[in-house]
Amino acid sequence: MEFKVNSKVLEKLLAKVIPAVPSRTPMPVLENFLLEIKDGALIVSATDLEIALRASINVAAEANIKMVVPARLLYDVIRNLEETQIHFENSANYKLKLKTDFGTYNIGYASHEDFPAIPVVSREKEIVLSGTNLKRAIDQTSFAMSKEDMRPAMTGTLLEFNSNELRFVTTDGHRLVKFVYKDFKCDKTEQYIIPERAISVLSKLLSESDVKIYLSKTHISFIMGELEFITRLIGEKYPSYNSVIPMENENIMKIKTADLLYSIKRMLLFSSSNSKQVKFTLRKDNLEVAAEDIDRGSNATENILCDYKGDTMEIGFNTAYVNDVLTHVNNEEIIFKLHSPTKACIIEPTSKKESEELLLLLMPVRLNS
Amino acid sequence: MEFKVNSKVLEKLLAKVIPAVPSRTPMPVLENFLLEIKDGALIVSATDLEIALRASINVAAEANIKMVVPARLLYDVIRNLEETQIHFENSANYKLKLKTDFGTYNIGYASHEDFPAIPVVSREKEIVLSGTNLKRAIDQTSFAMSKEDMRPAMTGTLLEFNSNELRFVTTDGHRLVKFVYKDFKCDKTEQYIIPERAISVLSKLLSESDVKIYLSKTHISFIMGELEFITRLIGEKYPSYNSVIPMENENIMKIKTADLLYSIKRMLLFSSSNSKQVKFTLRKDNLEVAAEDIDRGSNATENILCDYKGDTMEIGFNTAYVNDVLTHVNNEEIIFKLHSPTKACIIEPTSKKESEELLLLLMPVRLNS
Repeated sequence: MEFKVNSKVLEKLLAKVIPAVPSRTPMPVLENFLLEIKDGALIVSATDLEIALRASINVAAEANIKMVVPARLLYDVIRNLEETQIHFENSANYKLKLKTDFGTYNIGYASHEDFPAIPVVSREKEIVLSGTNLKRAIDQTSFAMSKEDMRPAMTGTLLEFNSNELRFVTTDGHRLVKFVYKDFKCDKTEQYIIPERAISVLSKLLSESDVKIYLSKTHISFIMGELEFITRLIGEKYPSYNSVIPMENENIMKIKTADLLYSIKRMLLFSSSNSKQVKFTLRKDNLEVAAEDIDRGSNATENILCDYKGDTMEIGFNTAYVNDVLTHVNNEEIIFKLHSPTKACIIEPTSKKESEELLLLLMPVRLNS
Repeated sequence: MEFKVNSKVLEKLLAKVIPAVPSRTPMPVLENFLLEIKDGALIVSATDLEIALRASINVAAEANIKMVVPARLLYDVIRNLEETQIHFENSANYKLKLKTDFGTYNIGYASHEDFPAIPVVSREKEIVLSGTNLKRAIDQTSFAMSKEDMRPAMTGTLLEFNSNELRFVTTDGHRLVKFVYKDFKCDKTEQYIIPERAISVLSKLLSESDVKIYLSKTHISFIMGELEFITRLIGEKYPSYNSVIPMENENIMKIKTADLLYSIKRMLLFSSSNSKQVKFTLRKDNLEVAAEDIDRGSNATENILCDYKGDTMEIGFNTAYVNDVLTHVNNEEIIFKLHSPTKACIIEPTSKKESEELLLLLMPVRLNS
């Protein structure tokens, strides 16, 4: 096997695939790239058994070959080279030899037989979404995925096709986010759950360009130009989240997002590390927020101007969760819709695009006496 | 006690002092600021028992007081406030009360009596150095301080006043850096050793402005405007480093710093994690560098153009140490002065200021056969 490639072209290719290489794994073979020469294409793949990435470029090579090469070493060598032509060949004793005008590098490789097969997702049915839209949906919802393995479905992001809507839903039982693209052309009515690590890697790969999406019962594939990203799906039933969302919360507070957000950031400093609690006291046109850390002997109270129509109410929240919601709501002004101190609270932006819907839900916490 | 202060002015003051607050300490009192009102000045101090920082601003306050306040909490509250006037007062039960137009914050404080005294360095003899020069000396030398506690003197930076020279010296036994300001007016002939943590904190505090330096047998004080930085000195004898520096190394190689540096960065990838070795083979006008990792079955060889006058020679170095030296030499071209594969090698920039001297020394390592 022999081929030549420009170092910067190869660097770009490897940079796309390396996010799938696990940094720690009990299976050392996963720390490698699968390098494949097939009919004039150089195909590079990597997987951690949950997600996989594959990208290719054209090279002038005659023989076909597959080999397994240390991913981090190859990538680091290539990106530390100035722009130059690299001549690749496989020499005896499982050595991959790289030659440039001024240097020679031998890298031990292994047989491809121990490298796990990368799942193939049928390209029968295709869904197309702009990278910008997919990224925005992920950015607004991913923070609320559960970190606890007890209920596996909730550790992922729900992708729901529902009568011409595409929905992204996340929840950890304490808060919930629903982001909807309306008027989305698709004849499916199905649910798929994408694991957290896949969401986090995918988010960094997305550009403005369109993404082609293919689905099977067990896997989802995203095609972005020459790059394919495949992940297994979580094979569990997603909780019926709709039943949690209250239909009529009649107490309505409008408030400037920044005013409340910066106040909450200060309350985070005073919330006790046990209860992590902030108390909202709602009165006509005034929100009082208060936090206390009895162990440290510190407390804080602030008053914020708002537009509140409803009963005077005291309600407690987890300060960090309020902070998360406000950070992701992405609008100058928001509405809190409340019913009572023990019922779920809805938070929505006051303005949004016709074709979109964003709903955030926050469960209150019982107030310390 | 009562006083008012602008939040941004106070934030700036606290930001200067907080670097001395230890992030982990078995002595919880050190996680506090010492807040002192004295004759119309607000003085804030912090110490980790090795280093201390103290800064002050003028405030309109009548009573004098000292109190010990949680440093991180106070600093975080202040820097998370918009610009506003803050009214301070101490209320009953050891509470420091902060009031703004929209909020009230109570922070538990403690008596100052358990807070360690901050050493006072006599201001009898003053040395003045520009912040720029002090920072450059630190930047060029600090990397070679020893990380091993076996020989405490070598874990610090030597400050040596020597017949109208000011020298900065660091060494860990494998490499040595000597940076000299010539024609430095000072009548002392003395050595002081500044601990590593002090050097690292000081480096971040320095601006272009002049620094006033005061010395005692046990401490050194740096005054930068309203900020005083005090550190204990290492009370050990510094090794007689001059005897290690060879006088005549007759084999001379001139090479472009960048050419060698980027090659060494690639060799770092191939150096075995045990020996960390790179082999230099010097021939007329050519330097061959080579590294090998037998365990991983990988190796690399590069050839670099240079100007070499001397015997053909093979010499081994610790790749990471060569990388460190090249990163800090700060000149387009450098000279290697060599004697033999077992003797210390000198590295110097080819050009330098009249008033300065920089010398780097690298011990070779025995080559693997």
